[in-house]
Amino acid sequence: MQELEERIQAEGTVKAGDVLKVDAFLNHQCDVRLFDHMGAAWAEHFAGKTITKILTIEASGIGIACCAARHFNDVPVVFAKKAQSINLDGDQYTTTVYSFTKQKEFPVIVSKKYLNPGDHVLLIDDFLANGKALRGLIELCEKAGATVEGIGIAVEKGFQGGGDRLREDGYDVDSLAIVESMDPETGKIEFRH
Amino acid sequence: MQELEERIQAEGTVKAGDVLKVDAFLNHQCDVRLFDHMGAAWAEHFAGKTITKILTIEASGIGIACCAARHFNDVPVVFAKKAQSINLDGDQYTTTVYSFTKQKEFPVIVSKKYLNPGDHVLLIDDFLANGKALRGLIELCEKAGATVEGIGIAVEKGFQGGGDRLREDGYDVDSLAIVESMDPETGKIEFRH
Repeated sequence: MQELEERIQAEGTVKAGDVLKVDAFLNHQCDVRLFDHMGAAWAEHFAGKTITKILTIEASGIGIACCAARHFNDVPVVFAKKAQSINLDGDQYTTTVYSFTKQKEFPVIVSKKYLNPGDHVLLIDDFLANGKALRGLIELCEKAGATVEGIGIAVEKGFQGGGDRLREDGYDVDSLAIVESMDPETGKIEFRH
Repeated sequence: MQELEERIQAEGTVKAGDVLKVDAFLNHQCDVRLFDHMGAAWAEHFAGKTITKILTIEASGIGIACCAARHFNDVPVVFAKKAQSINLDGDQYTTTVYSFTKQKEFPVIVSKKYLNPGDHVLLIDDFLANGKALRGLIELCEKAGATVEGIGIAVEKGFQGGGDRLREDGYDVDSLAIVESMDPETGKIEFRH
């Protein structure tokens, strides 16, 4: 998606440790007009599929998912919660996700009420790097018996391989910008096309 | 706002300890059509004011704020982050907020890049009870020299008094549903009109 790539080039900054900061428009300050265009792009890509629900994970995915939902007939958006601890009362699907940014595992939960066997789910998130968070969302869908119809990502760090592994596993991953390489010294960012 | 009150009556549940669960449509599963109507209601209420930015706090406020922004000329949405610890490198405005739900204080941060003296800010959040989170957001705006133009809230628990204290302090608080009383025994919810 040219608009997103241009914004990353203009406003993104590359930091050491494979960090790409795009908090000017994506995950701290949010450009909702861009989010709307991103939703339109995913709607075009996934046009042949029946989507009954969007599932994302707090916090950065929520705004993007809510803006995107307008392009999918206003389907409900469910956001998985990063919990302090797993509640064992049985009314939640739970998994754990390893965060490389935070260097620790954290529990992720979704209420059983909001993810069901009849759901055809589009997963949405702001970033895809190693794919750990998405694997967690996929596991929650599997536990619920829901069908993952596709995965919409804003920025994929292609060189970290998580997206390609999901594609190899048969998932339809639509990343609107795939960073092939980035250099913290020069700030140069190259995209896959 | 009649639509929101009806949803609370139909799908909200009252729990012990002054807890009102509305996660079916507001803060776990999100009804973006409702969020759009909420944004329209705030746009009507704050029509006379110049709003250049919406500030909310992760996680539940984000989706509501992003849907509402469409009714405020797509102004940027900034969400304050709940941090693990306060970063002292000086590029963030920081405060602490006491959470009654979690019974502890947590740091809240916003990058200095995204809150400025020229900003005329609408604060948005899903809930207003004691007002601690909003006081934190107001403090961040004060530190940045930004002007708080108003506060848009989905559900105010009027009996906890935080909203009225903000109004006494001169803030224009527009809560779309104000719960005057609720009873965990009977499930009965009464609204202020």
